Amino acid sequence: MMPSPITAILLISCPDRHGIVAALSSFITRQNGNIVALDQYVDPVDGVFFARMEWEVEGFAIPTENFAREFNALAEPFDITWSLHRSDQRLRMGLMFSRQLHCLYDILARYESGEWPVDIAVAVSNHNDHRGLVERFGIPFHHLPVTAEDKARTEPKQIAVMQQAGVDFIVLARYMQILSPAFIQAFPMRIINIHHSFLPAFAGARPYHAAHNRGVKIIGATAHYATESLDEGPIIEQDVNRVSHRQGVDDLIRIGRDLEKIVLSRAIYGHLHHRILVYKNRTVVFN
Amino acid sequence: MMPSPITAILLISCPDRHGIVAALSSFITRQNGNIVALDQYVDPVDGVFFARMEWEVEGFAIPTENFAREFNALAEPFDITWSLHRSDQRLRMGLMFSRQLHCLYDILARYESGEWPVDIAVAVSNHNDHRGLVERFGIPFHHLPVTAEDKARTEPKQIAVMQQAGVDFIVLARYMQILSPAFIQAFPMRIINIHHSFLPAFAGARPYHAAHNRGVKIIGATAHYATESLDEGPIIEQDVNRVSHRQGVDDLIRIGRDLEKIVLSRAIYGHLHHRILVYKNRTVVFN
Amino acid sequence: MMPSPITAILLISCPDRHGIVAALSSFITRQNGNIVALDQYVDPVDGVFFARMEWEVEGFAIPTENFAREFNALAEPFDITWSLHRSDQRLRMGLMFSRQLHCLYDILARYESGEWPVDIAVAVSNHNDHRGLVERFGIPFHHLPVTAEDKARTEPKQIAVMQQAGVDFIVLARYMQILSPAFIQAFPMRIINIHHSFLPAFAGARPYHAAHNRGVKIIGATAHYATESLDEGPIIEQDVNRVSHRQGVDDLIRIGRDLEKIVLSRAIYGHLHHRILVYKNRTVVFN
Amino acid sequence: MMPSPITAILLISCPDRHGIVAALSSFITRQNGNIVALDQYVDPVDGVFFARMEWEVEGFAIPTENFAREFNALAEPFDITWSLHRSDQRLRMGLMFSRQLHCLYDILARYESGEWPVDIAVAVSNHNDHRGLVERFGIPFHHLPVTAEDKARTEPKQIAVMQQAGVDFIVLARYMQILSPAFIQAFPMRIINIHHSFLPAFAGARPYHAAHNRGVKIIGATAHYATESLDEGPIIEQDVNRVSHRQGVDDLIRIGRDLEKIVLSRAIYGHLHHRILVYKNRTVVFN
Repeated sequence: MMPSPITAILLISCPDRHGIVAALSSFITRQNGNIVALDQYVDPVDGVFFARMEWEVEGFAIPTENFAREFNALAEPFDITWSLHRSDQRLRMGLMFSRQLHCLYDILARYESGEWPVDIAVAVSNHNDHRGLVERFGIPFHHLPVTAEDKARTEPKQIAVMQQAGVDFIVLARYMQILSPAFIQAFPMRIINIHHSFLPAFAGARPYHAAHNRGVKIIGATAHYATESLDEGPIIEQDVNRVSHRQGVDDLIRIGRDLEKIVLSRAIYGHLHHRILVYKNRTVVFN
Repeated sequence: MMPSPITAILLISCPDRHGIVAALSSFITRQNGNIVALDQYVDPVDGVFFARMEWEVEGFAIPTENFAREFNALAEPFDITWSLHRSDQRLRMGLMFSRQLHCLYDILARYESGEWPVDIAVAVSNHNDHRGLVERFGIPFHHLPVTAEDKARTEPKQIAVMQQAGVDFIVLARYMQILSPAFIQAFPMRIINIHHSFLPAFAGARPYHAAHNRGVKIIGATAHYATESLDEGPIIEQDVNRVSHRQGVDDLIRIGRDLEKIVLSRAIYGHLHHRILVYKNRTVVFN
Repeated sequence: MMPSPITAILLISCPDRHGIVAALSSFITRQNGNIVALDQYVDPVDGVFFARMEWEVEGFAIPTENFAREFNALAEPFDITWSLHRSDQRLRMGLMFSRQLHCLYDILARYESGEWPVDIAVAVSNHNDHRGLVERFGIPFHHLPVTAEDKARTEPKQIAVMQQAGVDFIVLARYMQILSPAFIQAFPMRIINIHHSFLPAFAGARPYHAAHNRGVKIIGATAHYATESLDEGPIIEQDVNRVSHRQGVDDLIRIGRDLEKIVLSRAIYGHLHHRILVYKNRTVVFN
Repeated sequence: MMPSPITAILLISCPDRHGIVAALSSFITRQNGNIVALDQYVDPVDGVFFARMEWEVEGFAIPTENFAREFNALAEPFDITWSLHRSDQRLRMGLMFSRQLHCLYDILARYESGEWPVDIAVAVSNHNDHRGLVERFGIPFHHLPVTAEDKARTEPKQIAVMQQAGVDFIVLARYMQILSPAFIQAFPMRIINIHHSFLPAFAGARPYHAAHNRGVKIIGATAHYATESLDEGPIIEQDVNRVSHRQGVDDLIRIGRDLEKIVLSRAIYGHLHHRILVYKNRTVVFN
C-alpha cells in the first residue's frame, strides 16, 4: 500500500447562507488545495451549516501556521466557527480506567498494532492493578486512589497529570468514578466515555441489572462526550446485541463487554480523524 | 410440502423441582404421545421452571377434552400452572387501529397469504378511514369514535364488540388511544401493543421526536403485552435500525414504520404459536 | 409539517480534477441556487469523482429546460456525465411479479399511504392471481403468461406494455422468470430486482434451500439493478437476519419475506430520490 | 456472586424415537441428578434427535468414571452417540496464528480476565513476531516456520507439539497457512477457524478485496470447524457489519478485524461450554 498523502482537515459550523459551499471550496481551490473529501450537512430546523473539508497539504499555498490569518477574511463574514487539523499531527490521548480489563486491553491492542494515529500520553487509574500492563506499552501510569472523602483533593491531581502530559483528549475506558463539573470543564467535548447501556435507557449505575429486570430483548452500549449531566452528553456511537430470557445478568455483562469495547473504539476513531462536530447536545459524525 | 401433523402444545410454569422434566416427558410418552418439541428454562434466581411441550395428537391416548382430568394428577403435586393448545385451533384476533396504515396493511397481507393460523374476528377503529380496506377482507368493522369526554362510554362498547366476536387476543396495530385499566383487565396478557421506540427509552407520546432530540444513533420498536402501566408491560420482541444525524424526525418516522410492522408481526407469530410465557413482567419466548 | 420546497437534483460523475467542487458549487451559487444538500465521493483507486447536488428551484436563474445548454459549458471541459431531476417530477414505475404477495402488498401499501413520490403506471404478471388486488389501486394490469416455449414471443409484449405506459423504471417484486438480455438492454440500470439471498452467496434458484443446506447462521436479501448476468448486477441494498439450526427451510422462507420487502423498498426509495450512481458494477448510494 | 455448582454435560445424538426424552430425563432423575438445563432439537427431515443435558454433579449417584457403564444400557437400544463433560474440567486450547494481532490479543485478554474455563496449553506460529507477547502469559511458544517446500516436514512437528501439550482443541486465530488433510484428521471437529468473510461468499484468499470488488453493502466473518475442504466446514457463528461505497478495502479490513475477533470468541465460548453438535456439515448450537 502507498502511504496516504498528508492532509489538512477543516471542521466548520455556521449559520446556513447562500453560497457558503462555493465560498469554501473556491477558497481552497484558489490556494491550490486538492480537496479529497467534502462532507456537509445542513440542519433544516435551525438552519445551521456543518462541513468537514479535507485537502492535500502538498501544494497548498498557505502554510498551516498562516491559515487562520488568511481564512478569517472568509470566516468572519459568514460567522464561521472552525478548527484546523492535520493528518500528520497525532493526537495525545489520556487514558482513565478502573479494574475492568476489556476496554483497556482492546485499546492497547489497537495501539500496538498501529491502528490509530494516536500517542497514549498517560494513564490514570484509581486502582493499581494494571500498572504492569500499561507500563509494558511505555505509557506513564499514575495510581491516584479515589475515595468519597478525598475525591475533591484527587481530581486536581488527575487534571494536573493530564495537562502536564499535554493530552488532547481523554478516554474513560470503564472508569467507574463520576467526574466533577470542574474536571469536565477542563476538557470540554474532549472526554469520551463508554456507558454500558443503550442510552437514554438505563442511565446510571448497574444498567445490565436494570436491563435484565426490564426484560429487554436487545442490549446496547453508548459512547458519548462526557458533560456535567451524567450519561446525558452528546452520543457519538451506539451498538446493540440481541439477548433472550436465557441470558442472566452475568451473560448480559459478558456480552456487553464486547459491545462496549467496539463502540468505544469506533468513537475514538471518529474523534482521532476529526469526523465529529457537536451541536445542541447531538453529534454530526461524518463517515 | 407435506402438511404438518396436528400437535398439542402444553405451556407450563411451576416451582423448579427434581424430576419435573422426567415426570412431564414420561407422562406424555406413557400416553403414547410423540414429543416433537420440548423447550424448557429454569429461572436460576427464583427457581421457577418453564416449559413448552409439543406432541402429535394422532396416537395420543388422551382426548383433548379429558386432558385436564388426567394431567391434574401430575400438575397438582408439582404445583403446575398450565394451558393446553392445539395447532388446529385457530385463534381469533381482534384488531384495533387508528389512521396509520402500515401495521394494518402488513397484518392484512399476511392474513391473505395464509402466513398465520388465525382468524381476524373483528376490527375496531376510532376513525372510519379504513372501513373499506378491512371489509374487503371479510372482517367486520366497527367505527367507535373516541373523544376525551366520551371515552368512558366508548370503552364498554369496544369490550362488548370484542367479546361478542369471541376474540382470543387483541392486537393494537398503532391504536393511538390509551386503554383504561378496565379494558386491560378484560384481556389480561392478551393485548399485544406495538410501541414506536426501543423501550424503556422514549415511552409515551412522540418517541421519534424524543429520539431525534436526544441524538441517538439507533432507533427501535417494541412489541409488548399491554398492562395498566403505559408502555411498561412485558416485552415480547424488539428490533432496531441504525440512523445518523442526516435523518430528521420525518425520516425516523418513515424508517420506524418498517421496524414497527416487522416487530409486531413477530410478536403475533409467537403468540399464535403459543411460544410466550409471562413471568414477573418479563417474557420467556421459546423460539 | 411544512411542504418541502421543490428542488433540482444533479447527479454527476467525472474524472477527479482540482477545483471540481468549487466549479460546481460556484456555478449553482452564481445562478442564485440555494444548495440544500451536497454529497460527493472520490474513488481513490480510479480517481473518479461522484456527486449529488440538490438546490431549491425557486429563485434559481436557469429554467430546467435551459439547464443543459448552460451547464454544458462547465460539463464539457471537466468531462462530466450528468443527469438532472426535479423533486416534483414523480417517476413512473412498472411493476412485475409472479404469485408471491409479500413484496407486491408492501409496495401497494406504501403507494396508498403516499410514502413515495411515484406513480405506478402499469403492472405485469405471468399469472392472473393478483389482478383484482392491483386493479383496486387503479393500476392497469396485464396478464402475460410465460412458458419456456413462448418466452421469446412474450418479452416483446412486456417491453411494449412498459414503454407504452411510459415507465421510468421497473421493479421486479419477486418476478420468477429470468429476463433476456434484450429486455435488460431496453431498461439499462432501470430494473430493480430483489434476490432472496445475501449475494454473492446463493445466487440462482432456491437460495433458502441452499442456505439451509450450508448451515449459515445469518440469511439475507439483496436488491440490485438487473444486468445480463443473472444476480450479478450492482448491489443497491442488503440486509440480514439471524437464524439458528431450529429454523427449517420454511422458516427461512418466512423470515426472508420480511427481509425481501424491506430491502426492496429501500432500494426503490434510493432510486426515486436519485441517490444512486452506478460505477464498475458497484453503486454509490448517497444517504 | 455465588460460584456456579459443578455440572455434568451430556451431548447426545440418535435416531428420533418415541420416548427418548422421557428415557433420558428419567435416567438422570433416578440417579438423583438435578437437571439444570435440557435443550433438544429434532431434525424433521432426517428424523435425528439432538440433546444437551446438564445436571448437578453433587448428589448424582453415578461417579463420572462409571457413567459409561451405566449409561450404555440406555444408549445402546436407542443407538445413541454421546459424550460426557464436566464444568470443572477446563479444556486445553492450542493456539495457532501468523502475524496479525487482533484475534490473538482478544483471546489473551479474555484469558487473563478469566472469561473462559480454558487453559491455553501451547501456541504455535509460523512467525516469531509475537513470542514475547505470548510468553508473558506463561504460554509455551513454538516458532515453526512454514515454506512451500518444507510444509510437509513442518506439519508433523506442529501436530506433535499439539499432542504433547495435550490440547483438546485448536484455535486458528488468523493462521494464514492451509492445513493439510492429515492435520485436520488428527483433530476432527476440534479445530476452530475464523474466516474473514460471510461464508459461503468470498471463500479463499483476499475476501475483503473480493467483497469490495463486488460492491456488497454488508461484510461478515465466519467461525467454523476446519475440514478438509477449505472454508467449507460446519459454520458455528457468523456476524456482519454494514459498509458503504465510502469504505475502501483498507476500511473493510479494519472493520472486519472487530467482526473476526468477536465471532471467533463466540465460537470458542460455545465449544468450551459443550454447546455445539455437528451433523451433516451443519452445527446445532444450543444457546
